[in-house]
Order: sequence, then structure tokens, then C-alpha cells
Amino acid sequence: MIDSRAILFVIGLLVTALGLLMLVPALVDAAASNPDWQVFTASAVATVTVGGGLSLAFRGAAINRFSLRHAFLLTSASWAALSAFAALPFTFLSADLHYADAFFEAISGLTTTGSTVLTGLDGLPPGMLIWRALLQWIGGVGIVLMAIIMLPFLRVGGMQLFQAESSDRSEKIVPRPAQLVSYIAGIYSLLTWICFLAYHWAGMGWFDALCHAMTTLSTGGYSTHDASMAYFDNGLILWCGTLFMAAGALPFVVYIKSMKGRPEAIWQDSQVRTLLGLLAVISLGLAFWHAGHNRIGFGEALTHAAFNVVSIVTTTGYASTDYTTWGPLAMVAFFMITFIGGSTGSTAGGIKIFRFQILWLITRAYLQRLISPSRAQVLLYEGRPVPGDVPFSVLAFITVFLGTVAVTTVVLSALGLDFDTSLSAAATSITNVGPGLGDIVGPAGNFATLPEAAKWVLSVAMLLGRLELFTVLVLFEPAFWRR
Amino acid sequence: MIDSRAILFVIGLLVTALGLLMLVPALVDAAASNPDWQVFTASAVATVTVGGGLSLAFRGAAINRFSLRHAFLLTSASWAALSAFAALPFTFLSADLHYADAFFEAISGLTTTGSTVLTGLDGLPPGMLIWRALLQWIGGVGIVLMAIIMLPFLRVGGMQLFQAESSDRSEKIVPRPAQLVSYIAGIYSLLTWICFLAYHWAGMGWFDALCHAMTTLSTGGYSTHDASMAYFDNGLILWCGTLFMAAGALPFVVYIKSMKGRPEAIWQDSQVRTLLGLLAVISLGLAFWHAGHNRIGFGEALTHAAFNVVSIVTTTGYASTDYTTWGPLAMVAFFMITFIGGSTGSTAGGIKIFRFQILWLITRAYLQRLISPSRAQVLLYEGRPVPGDVPFSVLAFITVFLGTVAVTTVVLSALGLDFDTSLSAAATSITNVGPGLGDIVGPAGNFATLPEAAKWVLSVAMLLGRLELFTVLVLFEPAFWRR
Repeated sequence: MIDSRAILFVIGLLVTALGLLMLVPALVDAAASNPDWQVFTASAVATVTVGGGLSLAFRGAAINRFSLRHAFLLTSASWAALSAFAALPFTFLSADLHYADAFFEAISGLTTTGSTVLTGLDGLPPGMLIWRALLQWIGGVGIVLMAIIMLPFLRVGGMQLFQAESSDRSEKIVPRPAQLVSYIAGIYSLLTWICFLAYHWAGMGWFDALCHAMTTLSTGGYSTHDASMAYFDNGLILWCGTLFMAAGALPFVVYIKSMKGRPEAIWQDSQVRTLLGLLAVISLGLAFWHAGHNRIGFGEALTHAAFNVVSIVTTTGYASTDYTTWGPLAMVAFFMITFIGGSTGSTAGGIKIFRFQILWLITRAYLQRLISPSRAQVLLYEGRPVPGDVPFSVLAFITVFLGTVAVTTVVLSALGLDFDTSLSAAATSITNVGPGLGDIVGPAGNFATLPEAAKWVLSVAMLLGRLELFTVLVLFEPAFWRR
Repeated sequence: MIDSRAILFVIGLLVTALGLLMLVPALVDAAASNPDWQVFTASAVATVTVGGGLSLAFRGAAINRFSLRHAFLLTSASWAALSAFAALPFTFLSADLHYADAFFEAISGLTTTGSTVLTGLDGLPPGMLIWRALLQWIGGVGIVLMAIIMLPFLRVGGMQLFQAESSDRSEKIVPRPAQLVSYIAGIYSLLTWICFLAYHWAGMGWFDALCHAMTTLSTGGYSTHDASMAYFDNGLILWCGTLFMAAGALPFVVYIKSMKGRPEAIWQDSQVRTLLGLLAVISLGLAFWHAGHNRIGFGEALTHAAFNVVSIVTTTGYASTDYTTWGPLAMVAFFMITFIGGSTGSTAGGIKIFRFQILWLITRAYLQRLISPSRAQVLLYEGRPVPGDVPFSVLAFITVFLGTVAVTTVVLSALGLDFDTSLSAAATSITNVGPGLGDIVGPAGNFATLPEAAKWVLSVAMLLGRLELFTVLVLFEPAFWRR
């Protein structure tokens, strides 16, 4: 059996921190003379009380005896617990927001998915808007830290490939150099700040620029307007967004390397090259098609194609227009690129570039062995041999990923949603993208009208996708709980 | 370079045999006093002339020096060549049938897909109907022989797992025991005969029973009526169809084993158990849902659910009703089960049961290793260790399979087809199932109205799927053509 006291202690600390964070929207609303500040303060008090109580009760627990199993359990439990508490202000603030909606909105924020059940964003008080942006912002940095420090250790879905970059190979998780955490937090904050200035320079107001900068770098996609980025009707803003969404989807270790005197590290990283190449090719292809098919200027077509392609591939989920009206090719293309995802060790979700690279290596090697069965094959990734268990991990990941999409789709359709809505909602939540296809979950739609059960299903799907599936699934393996 | 003379010799023989087969519809039409007999005879003469000429010209070629590369090239080239000639009667018989349509109909027949561009089947002369059934029937036995004798050798998509059942491990393909071929042909003919009697007993006329028996055992799905099996409106016929479609999707080696005194071999085979289990669970599930959702009796719901589920999973493609009108869950379910496929070494297409079993084994083992990294894992399939290269082959197969579905979908949508039609037409052709979703390619639709380019794309997709993708793809690898 697992001794869960240390886990409860850490979760208590995290929940306390979340409670303190609620004071930010409280202050913002107080400054705006909006009575909502009381609700945020009350939520903060409740959250800090529970979190503080938990950590006090279990403060004697031995953190240094953390095992692999503790790490799995802590990772899953902390995301679920934080979402549960982050939902409090939403459910207290709006009378017609059931807890299912509030939880959906909170977990969509923390997982940086960006699907929303709120309408009338333009008229909401600033506290609520900044709270949604903050959730995505802390979710984003949480994912980067988890992906660089935790997941390679847990060997989830082939991420042991990146073990060398962050950690040693012992089974116990030793305290990581605090330096790594501060580097990542620093870079993340700096990029957000630059993005904020860029948005403001391009024409956004201070508040909108701040909220959007936080949801851009985190590839989250929550906007302060129902029309998302289409509200601003400004090509310069779209290109700023394109640039910084892409920045959020690059592996953060390359930023650290380039800050440590190797700026060429960014371009030398194979995930970076593949991702940027893909984004360029798909954007150009769709721009040509959009310009020709819908008879608009190439410049405008490229602006919108690049923005929306980068938005979906980086799993951000902003929309600058309803691209599903561009014609069947666009609809198919936007559905397919939902699955790609960004780099590992970034704020992006999805299957992720390195897994496609591993699939490509294996398929190439297999094709050559079909022709010359006797030839020996070594798979090389960034010049180093791929560890033997990585292909199996990737295969297991893809299998469970597609299986999860299939099961989620079937469940949603059983709840009465049509084919396109079920399939695209399942895909967009597991990949943490945000919008799907169709009137309800499409870029011009809203998740509010979905049945309550569908919101719970999608909440679970977002969490599963964010935690790379296996971090959660191991908990359902009986062997996990045996000693 | 490859010496292709021996390949041309064998293709010449196969084309000659196909030409001789055209005399069957010629005789049928002559007996029915239909002038079409002249067209079939002319097509036969032309085909035999070309085929016979080819084999005569290259009769001196050394077949015994057949290498792995010859086998790949012969397999791909012979299916393409046979389809090209099998299309002749279609294009000669109907003035408004372009060669694209005729080729589509022929390759849909030979690959046992069953998608059709012909309308007004009920009024067609018997020669044309028997020719469509014959194409599927010989296509079916061709696939079984290819899957048991050829593909395990070529190590395509993990099929080396079944090498021990059929062959030795030398690199050259030695003449296989003619006994194996005659056993398979015998069992196939016997099952078709029993199916024919069963259909007639259940209420079909002689001619319909014969045509449907040939397209049932081959899991092809061509019918003699536009309404497919719905025409007969007879539950007994549907249950006969359900039974014999399933029989066509079982691995034919188990029939040989059971004929050789081990009848228990059928039930002991793990593909058989998994396939039948899946069919039972999905049919029952959909029957309950259909009965409840559409308020019909459970018996009727089960008859239609079982028939259509078995029809899609075995990649036959008959329809007893338009199941896409049953509601969103049915639409999603029928789309998903399109991918499953039957057993390897059967007449069925799709991803196939054993690949799902390998995926399951790998995922289970991976999940257990996540928890206990030090534990050694051996993958066992039917009690024997899985050869080391099988997981990689399966991974490469799944990758290329999904990639092919994606590319085909994008191309179809670029030709103007909507999302559901593009996606489901791509899936149903690569899996050799037959019907997709929507008004055009759905079970109540017809492929006739698709643009000509889409018909060529789907023809290639059917061929790729039938030949397990890699048999064709290796030909595009430059290394294949180098010495």
C-alpha cells in the first residue's frame, strides 16, 4: 500500500497557493469597485483553510521517501484537486452555473484546453476574466515543469527519451535543482511580459493584452471576448499571437540552453525544426487554398490561415474567424491537425512532435528492413540511439490515445451528440486544443449547451490528455496498489 | 535491378485465366438470350490474347530464381493488372460508364470491398451480376492464399507472426505444397456451396442465392439488388448472411486444422475467440440501444444489429437497412467498427484482430512496467513468444494505415466532398468494407455521383488496403530498385 500522507501534505500546499492566488482577482475587482471581490475573497478563505489544514495535518510526512508510485498519484491527484477548488469562484459568482460547468471551466483552464461554457465574456467583470487567464497561466508553467522534471522519470509515453536532459536514472525522485524551476519560471514570465507589450503595441488595451498574453504563452486560448481574437479585427495582433503561440509550443529546455550562451540550440533542436516546418507548410497550403477557393487576397488569407493553424497545432484554441466555413478541405485539415500537438516540455498538448518523429523513424527502418531483411538497424534521435523501450512506450501511448478518443466519442454520441460534434469534441479535449467542429463545439460555438454528463466526460478527457493518459491510467491497474 | 520477365510471365498466366473466366458470364447471358454475351466473349478474347501473349513471350523466364523483391512486385502488379482487365466488360457494356467507373467497380470487386458505382442492379442482365459476384469470389480466395502463403514471408505488417503456419524461413519463395492451395480452395468452395443452399432454403431464388453466396464468403458485399439485403425483407436470410460472413472472416488455417481431425482448433484460435466475442458484444450492445432508442422489438433489433455489425466488421458491406438513421450512437459505432476488420488469413480486410491483440499485449506490458520498471516482460501470443520485430511491424502498419486514411481524406475533401463523406469513404475503402456515412457513400447511397478523380483515389486506396499497404509502398522506396 501507498502511504498517502506525504501526498496529502503536498496537495495541501498547492491548494493553499491556489487560494492565495484568488486574492489577485479579488484585488482587481475591488479596484474596479465590483462586488465580486467579496466572492473571490470568500473562495480564497475557504480554499486556504482546506489547503492549509491539509498541509498542517500531514506536515510530519516524510517527503524524501517519495517513490515512483507517489509521483504518479501526486501528479493525478493534484491536478484534480486544484481544478475542484479553482471552480469555486465560478460556481459562487453565477447563479446559473452548476458545479459541473464551473468544474469544466476550471479544468479547461488549468489544463490549458480553452473550451468554455461561459457566454457574454465581453460584459464580465475583470476579476472573472483575470481568474480564467491566471488559471491557464499557472497551468501552463505547471505542465512545462511536469513534462521536464516528472514525466521523463515516470517514463510516460516515451518521454524517457528526454530523461538525460533533466535528471538521473535512480528510481526515487530526488529534489531537483531549484535552479531548473527558477529558470523555467523566469523564461515563462519574461516571454509573457514581451507578449503583453507586443499585444499592447499592436493595439490591445492594457487589460486585454495582459489576459491574452497569459493565455497565449500557456497555449490556453481563453479570451476576454466571445468572438475570441476576431473581436480585435487587427492583422498585427494576429501575427503577434501567431508568434507567441508558437513560442509557447517550443521545448523550454532550448530556451535555457540558448540563455546559457548557445542561442543556436533553438534551431538545432529537431522538435523545433519539425514543428516550425510543419506549421509553415500547413499554413501556406491552407492560405493558397483559402485565397483561391474563397476569392480573398493572399495576404489576408495567410494571416488567418497561419493564425488559426498555429492556434490549433499549438493546442491554444483561439479563433480569428470561423474557419470551418472555409470549405470541406479546411474542415478536414483543422480536424486532422488537432491531433498533432506541440513539442514535449512545452505548454502544448496533443500527441506531440517527438512521437511522430519516433513513428517516422520506426516506419522508415521497417520499410528498409522489408527490402533488406539482413541489414542491421539502429534508430537515431538527435544523433543518439533511441532507448529500447521508447518505441513500445510510444506505441502504447498512441494505442491508448486513439482508444480514449474512440471511447469518449462513443459515450458522447450515446448522450445524443451528432457524429461531428462527438468526434471533434473528444479529440479537442484529449489534445487540450479547445474548439472542435459543428455549431456547438466549433470555433463559433460554445460548450454551454452540452448536456451536463457530457461536460463531466470532457472534463475527465481533458485531464487524461493533459497528464499523458498513463499518469492517470496506472492508478486503475490493481498492481499499482499492491505492495 | 529486378529482372521482371518472370513477373510478366506469371501475370500473363493470371490474366489469361481471368479472360477464360469471362466465358462464364458469356454463357449465362447466352442462356438468358441476352445480347451481352457477345461483349463478354469479346472481352474474353481480348484478355486472353494479351495475357496469353505475355506468358508466351516470357515463357523462358526462370521462375525458380524468384526473390523477395519479385514477390512484392508480382503481388502488387498482378492485382492492378487483373483489375484493369476485369474492368473491360463493364466499360464495354454500358455507354455511360467511363473507364474510371469500370475500373472502380472491378477493383472494388477483386479487393472484395463492395462499393459500387452501378445503379439499377435489379434490372441488369444476369451476366453482369454474375461477373461482379465472380470477381469478389476469386478476389476472396486470392486474398486468403496471399495472406497465408505470401505475406508472412514478406513480413508485412507483423504477419511474420504466422510464418510458422505456412512456410520455412528461407529468403527465396520455394514452390509451396500444392496441397495447401487445394485445401483452401476446397474449403472455400464447400462453404460457398453450403451458404448457397442455406440462402435458397431461407427463401432466395437460385440465381440470387448463388451470387450472394459468392459475395458473402468472400466478405465482398456486392448484391444483385440496389437495396442490398434489405430487398428480401427476410430475417432468416439475414441470419444466414450473418453466419457465413463471420465464417469468411475466420482464419482459414483453423478450417484446415479442424478438417485434419482437430475440430477444437476453431475455438482454440485466439483470433477466432476475440473476433466472435467482439461481434457478440457490439451486436448485443447496439441491439439494446436500437430497441430502446427507436422503440422496436428486441428480436428485430438484434437481427438487424447483428447483421450490419457483422457485415461491417467482417468488411463485407451488405446493408439490411440504413443503420445511419438509427441515431448518433449508431453512426459513430458503425464508423468505428469499420476499422476493426476480420482475422488475418481470411477474406476480410481492415486492421485485423491480431494487430489489436498485439497492441493490447504491448500496452498491458508497458502499463505493468511503468509500475515495476525492473520486472522482465515477455510478450506471449497463443502461448509462444512474439518475435522481436513483430511489434515494430505492427507499429509501422498502424502508422501508415492512419496516415493513408488521413491523406486520402484530405485529398477527397480537396475534391469538394464534405467532412463525413471524405473521412468515411477513405476509411471504408482502405479497410475494404464498402459503405461509409452520409447520403453519397452511406449504406443507402451510391458511389456513382462522386467526381471521377475521387474514384481513382478510392481505387488506389482499396488496392493499398487490400495489399496491407507495405506490399505496394516498398515499390516507392528507391532502395527497392537498387541492386
